[in-house]
Amino acid sequence: MRRFVVGRTKSLVNRYQRSRVLSSTPLLLDSPSSMAAPPSSSHPSPPVTLETINPKVLKCEYAVRGVIVTLAERLQHELQANPGSHPFDEILYCNIGNPQSLCQQPITFFREVLALCDHPAILDRSETQGLFSADAIERAWQILDQIPGRATGAYSHSQGIKGLRDTIAAGIEARDDFPADPNDIFLTDGASPAVHMMMQLLIRSEQDGILCPIPQYPLYSASIALHGGTLVPYYLDEATGWGLEISELKEQLEAAKSKGITVRALVVINPGNPTGQVLSEDNQREIVEFCKKEGLVLLADEVYQENVYVPDKKFHSFKKISRSMGYGGDDISLVSFQSVSKGYYGECGKRGGYMEVTGFSADIREQIYKVASVNLCSNISGQILASLVMNPPKVGDESYESYAAEKDGILSSLAKRAKTLEEAFNHLEGVTCNKAEGAMYLFPRIHLPQKAIEAAEATNTAPDAFYAHRLLHATGIVVVPGSGFGQVLGTWHFRCTILPQEDKIPAIVSRLMDFHKGFMDEFRD
Amino acid sequence: MRRFVVGRTKSLVNRYQRSRVLSSTPLLLDSPSSMAAPPSSSHPSPPVTLETINPKVLKCEYAVRGVIVTLAERLQHELQANPGSHPFDEILYCNIGNPQSLCQQPITFFREVLALCDHPAILDRSETQGLFSADAIERAWQILDQIPGRATGAYSHSQGIKGLRDTIAAGIEARDDFPADPNDIFLTDGASPAVHMMMQLLIRSEQDGILCPIPQYPLYSASIALHGGTLVPYYLDEATGWGLEISELKEQLEAAKSKGITVRALVVINPGNPTGQVLSEDNQREIVEFCKKEGLVLLADEVYQENVYVPDKKFHSFKKISRSMGYGGDDISLVSFQSVSKGYYGECGKRGGYMEVTGFSADIREQIYKVASVNLCSNISGQILASLVMNPPKVGDESYESYAAEKDGILSSLAKRAKTLEEAFNHLEGVTCNKAEGAMYLFPRIHLPQKAIEAAEATNTAPDAFYAHRLLHATGIVVVPGSGFGQVLGTWHFRCTILPQEDKIPAIVSRLMDFHKGFMDEFRD
Repeated sequence: MRRFVVGRTKSLVNRYQRSRVLSSTPLLLDSPSSMAAPPSSSHPSPPVTLETINPKVLKCEYAVRGVIVTLAERLQHELQANPGSHPFDEILYCNIGNPQSLCQQPITFFREVLALCDHPAILDRSETQGLFSADAIERAWQILDQIPGRATGAYSHSQGIKGLRDTIAAGIEARDDFPADPNDIFLTDGASPAVHMMMQLLIRSEQDGILCPIPQYPLYSASIALHGGTLVPYYLDEATGWGLEISELKEQLEAAKSKGITVRALVVINPGNPTGQVLSEDNQREIVEFCKKEGLVLLADEVYQENVYVPDKKFHSFKKISRSMGYGGDDISLVSFQSVSKGYYGECGKRGGYMEVTGFSADIREQIYKVASVNLCSNISGQILASLVMNPPKVGDESYESYAAEKDGILSSLAKRAKTLEEAFNHLEGVTCNKAEGAMYLFPRIHLPQKAIEAAEATNTAPDAFYAHRLLHATGIVVVPGSGFGQVLGTWHFRCTILPQEDKIPAIVSRLMDFHKGFMDEFRD
Repeated sequence: MRRFVVGRTKSLVNRYQRSRVLSSTPLLLDSPSSMAAPPSSSHPSPPVTLETINPKVLKCEYAVRGVIVTLAERLQHELQANPGSHPFDEILYCNIGNPQSLCQQPITFFREVLALCDHPAILDRSETQGLFSADAIERAWQILDQIPGRATGAYSHSQGIKGLRDTIAAGIEARDDFPADPNDIFLTDGASPAVHMMMQLLIRSEQDGILCPIPQYPLYSASIALHGGTLVPYYLDEATGWGLEISELKEQLEAAKSKGITVRALVVINPGNPTGQVLSEDNQREIVEFCKKEGLVLLADEVYQENVYVPDKKFHSFKKISRSMGYGGDDISLVSFQSVSKGYYGECGKRGGYMEVTGFSADIREQIYKVASVNLCSNISGQILASLVMNPPKVGDESYESYAAEKDGILSSLAKRAKTLEEAFNHLEGVTCNKAEGAMYLFPRIHLPQKAIEAAEATNTAPDAFYAHRLLHATGIVVVPGSGFGQVLGTWHFRCTILPQEDKIPAIVSRLMDFHKGFMDEFRD
């Protein structure tokens, strides 16, 4: 029997229920919002307490920046203040897909264009020719010409600058071989706000459900919680390389319906996060058919579209798949999320991305536009970068060779690192780890000894969190416990990025092996 | 008798109510979410319709990018495709505080630093010395040294880069002469996401109310609608230069309480948007006292803090005022919003800003941090820019003189433009216009002839929207009808920015006068 288990959920839900109970009892009278404190009262209750905030906020959690990261930051401060205070020299943040924090260098061409667009006054100067490549200068001019008044400091259209959307649509067409419409593109500050926007549109109450993979990227559980909906889990099958089975989708959909939940959308993350699987075309076609048949919006998280590491798998967008099945915009409602934070570029700090929204009526599109307009527009540098990643230098451009070398260097190194770490995990006693076919993570399963589980429970900690804390304290390596992503009850995992630089991998593997052996020895049954 | 009237609200609320009725009746069975469409059905109902989206989205509206802007964009396309098709050469967007869209130039020093941080590879190159000022190069190095690994492409701490928060806190201290803590700063993609974050925290249901000025900046009404709360209006007094009276706050608070509303926070916009008033210190002290006494969070929109145009008024932050009254963090919960989009810099497209959050307990701060962490971080260029506007060049720095000249040029020109436009409006028949003491807008009142009101009603349009549409069609000038901001029932206004460049003002004034005279002649009673 499978059950959705997320660490700390129970305690949070308890607090949540407590807060709900409080807010419907006379105890609420303690809240100063409904009680005018006398002016003489020197210490009235504060206007905002855990009991009086929005319970949806309380319920939301986000593991990849959770407790373990706070602990890691504390250890880092201790190391800085007192070198040698821990058995490691540095904290290795393998908790989050943040490549440049682990020394991945940005793509030079992209940064040249961004710098020139930030300070166009130098475009005409002779020194600029010596500092920047000719095609970066040309591209900057092209982009500036697409911006009304060349004003990179002005709010743009709320969907993003039209010329940049044209470029992105052309990039999608080149990728998919099917038409893309710039009016379907909404540029956003990374993929996260785009996901929130769709959840906000779809979720009316906790009777509305969103089908999400388990394990999932916790943005989805967090966003559904914040918007007051219900996460309807479907389990990926670890035994078949985290396969996505339609029978499981059907079963969970029916189970949700029987509980009175209206399921509105299906989230698919491809390549998978945290699982790293790349879906086959056949599987994608089944998924499209399922959404069409069941009247579900397909929310396709395709932010790792450039991150595929195995020769027998290839990324196909869900739009391409559905169009190749003969389904047009009238047949299926589909949102594809893309981000500048992932791929080979890894420009997380730029907060750029877009969603391509197809298969919605004009009046719904107007509502999405309205919500986008309340935040005016996404940041222009992120918009420019999104256009660059969808239209990088081409053969013959001055920057092409250096660009291609940078890109291939990063992607082939990521593939090597994924393989090395996967093999290392599989060599650990009681650990099994699927291949990272794509994305930026491995999600090994640890078969923990019963004594370790008991030791964890004695400290009121999920066993995988217990393991991750011990790992951090012993090695400085930060991984995220599987309970933050959801996992089959009684199984334990952690997510580890493949992002540390290659020259650091041997030391990481060795620290990991030593730690794991010591841990298993300590808790061996 | 005053009443809160917002244009189009009625029709939207009608649609909203219709959708609520629908969603609680058997008609919902038409929705495919609860009905598995047979595979043979070639045209099943779409998964998302106006009847099945989140009614809060439907209810939300945002006037500054509303219908009139869509119309203006259409006219602009027509002008481009067919020059001479309208009685004007260009559209003048006076609907939104977007200075660089109207040719305001960015501050050179800020853009130099941003460009260097975007492409640090050039910092060491000799050509760079010729292209960039020495202090911009030095500042870029300082900023890079504050970023772990100098990685401007990495996600930062979810509150923003610590070193930049240190700089901002120091800037606040220099401004206020009271301590500021970098741990109280949350860097955000402009002020709008910060406002949403606080609304999300505070609003549990429509029984939670937020006191907002009328007229207000429609971000507040939009955000409250999206989060499902109730806007509790308090009316600024046009007769006393849009004065904020405590008696009015009290009256509206009591009225809300008597309807079962728990009022959680008071929004104050200072300098005012759309009204342009700058609050006096005495008035601010009364407001602080009121919030303290009533247990309200004070949400202080201080994004126009640099935009004060009259010698007898000065901006004081609410934090400074409350600290000077002897109130510390334990006494009052206060959030101050700041943005890089306004001031003399007007860097709207960069989406930078921060909120300074004081007077909340550690566990509430943890919740705010958690919500911030779900979006990972705000964009790094915006973060850098927020640190720059709070710590611009100082006397003695190489850039100081040119920086000061740019800044003073913009601010003194804005003051002149405000005065010229204010006088022009006051010369129009039946128009009265308060002084823009600060911010970027004038909010003239138009006393419309009865025949114009009837003509508007005949086309199902609010009279001020009717006027604004006529103005746009005749002159290409885009203003926002007062009904988008809220106004006393039976009064009509529009908001017009003071942002067109000085050399354009005479032509604008002349077009405005001609149009207005024609309009009044046409509809004179």
